[in-house]
Amino acid sequence: MSTSSNALRDAQDRRLPRIAGPSGLVIFGVTGDLSRKKLMPAVYDLANRGLLPPGFSLVGFARRDWEDEDFAKVVHDAVKEHSRTPFREEVWQQLVQGCRFVQGDFDDDAAFETLKHTVLELDKAQGTGGNFAFYLSVPPKFFPKVVQQLKKHGLADAPEGSWRRAVIEKPFGHDLKSAQELNAIVHEVFPPQEVFRIDHYLGKETVQNILALRFANTLFEPIWNRSYVDHVQITMAEDIGIGGRAGYYDGIGAARDVIQNHLLQLLALTAMEEPASFDADAVAAEKTKVLGAVRLPKNLGKETVRGQYAHGWQGGEEVVGYLEEEGIDPASKTDTYAAVKLEIDNRRWAGVPFYLRTGKRLGRRVTEIAVVFQRAPHSPFDHTATEELGQNALVIRVQPDEGVTMRFGSKVPGTSMEVRDVSMDFAYGESFTESSPEAYERLILDVLLGESNLFPRLKEVELSWQILDPIEEYWDKHGTPAQYPAGTWGPVEADEMLARDGRSWRRP
Amino acid sequence: MSTSSNALRDAQDRRLPRIAGPSGLVIFGVTGDLSRKKLMPAVYDLANRGLLPPGFSLVGFARRDWEDEDFAKVVHDAVKEHSRTPFREEVWQQLVQGCRFVQGDFDDDAAFETLKHTVLELDKAQGTGGNFAFYLSVPPKFFPKVVQQLKKHGLADAPEGSWRRAVIEKPFGHDLKSAQELNAIVHEVFPPQEVFRIDHYLGKETVQNILALRFANTLFEPIWNRSYVDHVQITMAEDIGIGGRAGYYDGIGAARDVIQNHLLQLLALTAMEEPASFDADAVAAEKTKVLGAVRLPKNLGKETVRGQYAHGWQGGEEVVGYLEEEGIDPASKTDTYAAVKLEIDNRRWAGVPFYLRTGKRLGRRVTEIAVVFQRAPHSPFDHTATEELGQNALVIRVQPDEGVTMRFGSKVPGTSMEVRDVSMDFAYGESFTESSPEAYERLILDVLLGESNLFPRLKEVELSWQILDPIEEYWDKHGTPAQYPAGTWGPVEADEMLARDGRSWRRP
Repeated sequence: MSTSSNALRDAQDRRLPRIAGPSGLVIFGVTGDLSRKKLMPAVYDLANRGLLPPGFSLVGFARRDWEDEDFAKVVHDAVKEHSRTPFREEVWQQLVQGCRFVQGDFDDDAAFETLKHTVLELDKAQGTGGNFAFYLSVPPKFFPKVVQQLKKHGLADAPEGSWRRAVIEKPFGHDLKSAQELNAIVHEVFPPQEVFRIDHYLGKETVQNILALRFANTLFEPIWNRSYVDHVQITMAEDIGIGGRAGYYDGIGAARDVIQNHLLQLLALTAMEEPASFDADAVAAEKTKVLGAVRLPKNLGKETVRGQYAHGWQGGEEVVGYLEEEGIDPASKTDTYAAVKLEIDNRRWAGVPFYLRTGKRLGRRVTEIAVVFQRAPHSPFDHTATEELGQNALVIRVQPDEGVTMRFGSKVPGTSMEVRDVSMDFAYGESFTESSPEAYERLILDVLLGESNLFPRLKEVELSWQILDPIEEYWDKHGTPAQYPAGTWGPVEADEMLARDGRSWRRP
Repeated sequence: MSTSSNALRDAQDRRLPRIAGPSGLVIFGVTGDLSRKKLMPAVYDLANRGLLPPGFSLVGFARRDWEDEDFAKVVHDAVKEHSRTPFREEVWQQLVQGCRFVQGDFDDDAAFETLKHTVLELDKAQGTGGNFAFYLSVPPKFFPKVVQQLKKHGLADAPEGSWRRAVIEKPFGHDLKSAQELNAIVHEVFPPQEVFRIDHYLGKETVQNILALRFANTLFEPIWNRSYVDHVQITMAEDIGIGGRAGYYDGIGAARDVIQNHLLQLLALTAMEEPASFDADAVAAEKTKVLGAVRLPKNLGKETVRGQYAHGWQGGEEVVGYLEEEGIDPASKTDTYAAVKLEIDNRRWAGVPFYLRTGKRLGRRVTEIAVVFQRAPHSPFDHTATEELGQNALVIRVQPDEGVTMRFGSKVPGTSMEVRDVSMDFAYGESFTESSPEAYERLILDVLLGESNLFPRLKEVELSWQILDPIEEYWDKHGTPAQYPAGTWGPVEADEMLARDGRSWRRP
C-alpha cells in the first residue's frame, strides 16, 4: 500500500508539500524529556505547516495519573516552550481535538485494552483510518514488553488498507547479539518495512545535504576518492558532561552511544557510491555496501583510543571528572571519548583512513565531516612561499552553524607569490529564507508517510555493531580509558594516533 | 646580471620583502593622467612601504615649462590625492630629493642631452648606480622617436654592471604587422629582456591568484579540463562610455583595446598547463603554448559579435550613443562591444568554448572569469526537484569585489529533496588583513627588480594579434556593429550567439 502510493507521488512533482494522510501517533514514555522537548513540538510544527491531516491524533501512554485534559495541558506547554514555528491558537485548537491519554504501565493489560479502544474511538471521531505509529520513547529494556503487548492486544495488526508502524529510538542493542535479539522481537510483531529506527542525526538538513552535495553537483565527485582525498575526519564533540544520564550512560560509553549510529551513518553517506535513485531501497543498498567494506584497524591498541574526562574547566566553570559524577561507579571504565581509525576496502577508498571521534566535555560542541585532500602533487611555487599552506579541505558542518566550508590556498596580497589558506563558506542560515525544520519534524512526517530513506535498516545496524564489537571487546580486556581534562580536545593518545600517520585532528 | 641575482634571491626566502636596488625611473609623458593618477602614487606607495632604495630618483620629461620644484609640487599633489598608503612627510622628504624635471619635446636633442646629464648627476647625488628605467607613458606614435633619442644620446646603453630598461604601455600596435614594426624599433635599442610591456591587469592580485588557485591546490586542477568544464566565460564590462578618449578610441575599438591584451592574457592564465616553476621563462612558455593553440571560429559572422552603444540610460542618467559622442565620426564603425568564441586545440580543452566579451556602457563595471562546469552526468534525484539547479561554476572576480565564488547545488531546507543553487564565497577584503597593492606598485617594482613574470612577451603579443587580426579583417569587410542601448548587456546578437550553443551569458 504505502510503497505504491509513494511511487505514485514520486512520479509527481516532489516540490509539492508532502502531506501525511489520515493517521495518529501513540507515544510511549510521553512524560520523558525527548517527548516534551522534541516530539510534541515537532508534531505541532508539522500541524502548523499544514502537513498533518485535520484529524491527526496524538495519544500519550504513561504511568502518570492524568486525564486527557492534563495531557493536553502538558502538550500545550511543551509546544509553547519548544516549537520552532509560532504558536497559533487555531492550529492548537484543531490539534487538541485529537489528544488522548492512556494511563498504565507496560505490564498492564487493561491499559493496552484502553489504548485499543482509544484507537478505535479516534478512527471514528477523528477519521484516523486505522493508521497508527507507535513511538517507543522508552528505555530499550522495555521494547520487548511494549511490542509484545501491542501484539497481544491486536494493536500491531493493521486493519485492511491501513498501516501500523513501530518507531524505535537508539540504542538498537549494545552489541550485535543484543541488537539481533531486539530486532527478532520487534520483527516478530511488525514487518521490516514498518519498523522505523530513529537516528535523529539523519534528519538534519546538513546530513541530508551530503547526498545532494555529492551527487547533484559536478564539482565534488571527481575528487571524492583515493586519488585526491588524503583522509576523512568525522567529529561529534559535546561540551557537556553526562548530566543526568548516569544510569543510561555508564557501561554504554561514547563509542556505543555515538560512533555505532551517528558517526558510522555519516561515514556511510560520505563514502557510499552513487545510488541508482534516491529511492529508500537504492540508498540503503549503497550504505549497506560501504558499511560492509569497512575494515577494522589491525592494531586495535594503537588505532583506537578511548578516554574519560577528568576534572577541569569548561566555559569558565570548574567541572568534576566523570568518575566523580553522581551515580557513576568510581572504578568505571566507561569511555566518554572514543576515536577510531577505519579504512574502507573498496576501489574508491582503499588506503584512505577515516578517523572518527566523539567525546563529552570537549573544547566545544560541534559535529562535522572534514574531507581533507592531498597536497598538490607538484608546486611551481617556491616551497618557502607555501609553508603556511595546509591541505585543501571540504568541511560539512552538521551543527552548529550548519553549512559547508572549503579551505584552499590563495595568494597573499603583496608583491611576492606567497600562498596561504583561506576559506569559502556557505551558510544555510544566510543562503535560504526557508528555516530548517527540526530533524524530528522531518522524521515523524516520514514515518507517517511510510518513507524510510532516513532510517537505518536492520542490516546497517548489524554491520555497525560488527565494526564496533571487536573494539569494545579489545577495550574490555586491555587497560583503562586515558584521562583528559574537561574542556580539552581529548586524550593525548588520540593526538598521537594521528601523529603516527603524519596527520593531526582539526580544531574545529 | 639581473638574471643571476634573481636566481640567487629566488633561492632565498621569497617572503622577505623584495626591495629594489639603487635605481631611478624616467617618465615620458609625465603630465598625463596615467602618470598623475597611477605612476606617481605607486612610486610613493613603494617608497612608503620601504621597497625603494633611499636614493631612488624620479625624473619627469615633458614639454611643460617647469622647474624641478614645479614638478615636485605636481608629484606631491598627485601622491596626496591618489596614494593608497597614508602620506608621511618623512617619506616624501626623502623621495623629493631625487625628483628632477627635464623640459623638452621628443625631437629636442638638447633636452635629451640634459636628461643624460640629469641621469649622471643623480648617479652621483643619489647613488642610482646607473640603473634607469624609461617609462614611455606616451601615445604609441611617439615610441619610435623616444627610443631612438634614448639610443642617440647614449641613454639606452647601460654602463658596466648596471641596467637600462624600457617600459611601454599598450597598445602594442594595432595589428600583427604594426606590433612587429614597433617591436623591431624598440628591440633595436633595448635587448628583449629589458623591455617591459605593461598590461596592468596582470598586476592585479586576483589575476596573479589564478595560478595560485590552480596550482597550489588539489581541489581545482582535477576538474579543470574538458571532462568536467562545459565552457568558460571571460568578461570585462565597463559602465562608462569613451569619455575623453575619442581620439584614441575611434578606429581602435573594444576588441583591440581589451580582448587582444587583457582578455587573451586572462584566457592564457586560465587555460595554460602547469609550468615547471613560477620562473618568468617557464610561465611565458606555457602562456605562449596555449595562445598558440587557440583556434579561431570557423564562422566569423556567427561566432563573433561587435556592437556599438546607442543612446540609453545609465545609473539614472540619460547618456548619448557612441556616434553622438564628441569627436566621433557619425559614420564610425568602431566596436564598443566585442564578443568572440574561441576554442583551444589541445588535449585539455578540445571542444570547450571560451567566450570572451568586453564592452563599454554595459550594465555594470565588472571583470570576471567564470569556469562553468557540465551538469552531473546522472542525478539520483527526481528531475523536477532539481529544475532550479544551474550548472556548477567557479567564478574568479577580478574586479570589483575581488575574490572567488563557487556556485553549486544544495538541498533546500524542508521536508523534500529539492536542490537549488547556492554559492560559497571568498573575498580578498575579508580574508586578508594585508591590503592589496595597486597593480602599478607591483609592476613598477618588478621593472626595477628586472622580474618579467607579469609582463606579456613579444611572442604573446604577436600570437594575440594573430588571433584578432582575422576577426578585425572580417569585421572591416562585413556589415556594421550592432547597436545596443547604453546600460544593457550588449547587442542581442551576442545573446543569440550563446543561445545557438544552448548556453547563456552570466549576468554578473
